[in-house]
Amino acid sequence: MLILGIDGGGTKTEAVLLDEKARILNYRRGEACNVATLSEDAIAKVICSLLKDLSKVDIAVLGLAGAGRKKHLEKATRAVSRVLEAKQLIIMPDAEIALYSSTLFKPGILIIAGTGSIAYALDSSGNTYRCGGLGYLLDDEGSGYWIGLRVLQTVAKMLDSREKPSLLLEKTLEFLNVSTLDELVELTYSRLTVSDIASLAKIALELFEEDVYCRRIIGEACRELAQLAKCVAIKAGISSSTIFCQGGLFDSSTFTKLTELMLRKVFKKKIELKKPLFKPVVGALLFAWKKLGWDLDSLLVSLKNYSFLLNE
Amino acid sequence: MLILGIDGGGTKTEAVLLDEKARILNYRRGEACNVATLSEDAIAKVICSLLKDLSKVDIAVLGLAGAGRKKHLEKATRAVSRVLEAKQLIIMPDAEIALYSSTLFKPGILIIAGTGSIAYALDSSGNTYRCGGLGYLLDDEGSGYWIGLRVLQTVAKMLDSREKPSLLLEKTLEFLNVSTLDELVELTYSRLTVSDIASLAKIALELFEEDVYCRRIIGEACRELAQLAKCVAIKAGISSSTIFCQGGLFDSSTFTKLTELMLRKVFKKKIELKKPLFKPVVGALLFAWKKLGWDLDSLLVSLKNYSFLLNE
Repeated sequence: MLILGIDGGGTKTEAVLLDEKARILNYRRGEACNVATLSEDAIAKVICSLLKDLSKVDIAVLGLAGAGRKKHLEKATRAVSRVLEAKQLIIMPDAEIALYSSTLFKPGILIIAGTGSIAYALDSSGNTYRCGGLGYLLDDEGSGYWIGLRVLQTVAKMLDSREKPSLLLEKTLEFLNVSTLDELVELTYSRLTVSDIASLAKIALELFEEDVYCRRIIGEACRELAQLAKCVAIKAGISSSTIFCQGGLFDSSTFTKLTELMLRKVFKKKIELKKPLFKPVVGALLFAWKKLGWDLDSLLVSLKNYSFLLNE
Repeated sequence: MLILGIDGGGTKTEAVLLDEKARILNYRRGEACNVATLSEDAIAKVICSLLKDLSKVDIAVLGLAGAGRKKHLEKATRAVSRVLEAKQLIIMPDAEIALYSSTLFKPGILIIAGTGSIAYALDSSGNTYRCGGLGYLLDDEGSGYWIGLRVLQTVAKMLDSREKPSLLLEKTLEFLNVSTLDELVELTYSRLTVSDIASLAKIALELFEEDVYCRRIIGEACRELAQLAKCVAIKAGISSSTIFCQGGLFDSSTFTKLTELMLRKVFKKKIELKKPLFKPVVGALLFAWKKLGWDLDSLLVSLKNYSFLLNE
């Protein structure tokens, strides 16, 4: 029996091959697999690169970035079917497998804050709920893009004499290698991508202690994320004192602590914000295992032995 | 003596040909002329279409949208020079000729709020100052795009159970011809342009009285514009009790009255917000006339007789 789990994210893809005795047969990493932005051919190529000496599995569960929208899910299904033969093929958003790898199928909440942001919840009947994740124009509050755009706007206002210059101005201009408002405007509209803008979040995090603008931006981001979690908790009808977190912004302990504080305010009780033990790809394996009707505990015991499946 | 004034905006271009006796010899209208988005060839074509039976003038003053940035100004200069021979050729941003047509070269302030927003001021020495106008990503607070994006974000939150549904939801979905959150997200990222988003501002204006979300969005927009005016007033060191306004948003009397109220708060004194008597293209003629060292009063008396040069 061959079980394949894949986590295709915006920066890399991970694939794990498992047998019915909960032994890992193979672990591979490949390129990013955002199905909203990649063509059908490109998706097939990424998946194919992970399947060396393998085209047939019994059950494959793939969590792919961008698969939350019907049109992209259909494209991904066509692409994957071209290169992978599976008795059962299940594709879902990457955030959903991350949810399973976090709560291990118990009711719970996961906040993800990287370039974008989203909150996901699982209730006791196994239903999932989401809040946010509508992309950089429509919301993604508290995400890296959201923070980075505010950094850009603040710096533009400083150069336009509408805000007092601060350390944030100096560091951002240095990072972007520009020196005037004209150059900043030119760069913004000609070359900065969504992920370039999101990368400015790290400047705001670095200057959190020293710069009042950064404190304000980061504080608002953490509050927005807490509200996202509250919204999904209400949708799912669950009340938990542990909330899981994932994504680049939570690599910062400042960011994590402040979000925990905001969660406490929003939920009006102490909430522990916790990094999941397992990486998202494990969520795909758990989902497949559960689908086969097998007991999760024995699988979990086995997977804990593979350090490459654990979050550092 | 032939004097040519041109106002090239985001939706249309107007050209006026004047002689040394302040008589209008010709008035023509053409396509939009945003030099930030048009190619050199396209700019030359628009200008050329306005110059029937005319390739030589003594002095030409052109106010062109997008000419505020060096790179675009250079492109526009090359394009115009190809089709127009002028002893003196002067190109400036369209907002600057709008400023001259508003204050008639006296110190003063102009707020423009259409798709984008900007505030311009002229001091007693003839220097100009600007605030805002950095485009949809960097600021443009209080502009049509700014309002329209907030409408979209609010509606998305209503569909995501994060805000209570209101009349704004119904009207916006009807206007965009979508009915679910998925369809809204799909439409936003696949087809909505900056000006499509700006066009949603009219829904917020229409529902101002009935809808609390619209009242909040419009109120914030007007406050932002008042702050833009304050910022440019400080830069220019002028204090005036009349401020001029221009752009589609000020076609709404609700918007104009509310901005006037916000100006009063921000400036801490009564401010009259006034539509300029003349259209922006007149600013180009005035600039040329002044450049020639001639008296403006006689020109103004003459131009008032041409109804197509006046704002309705």
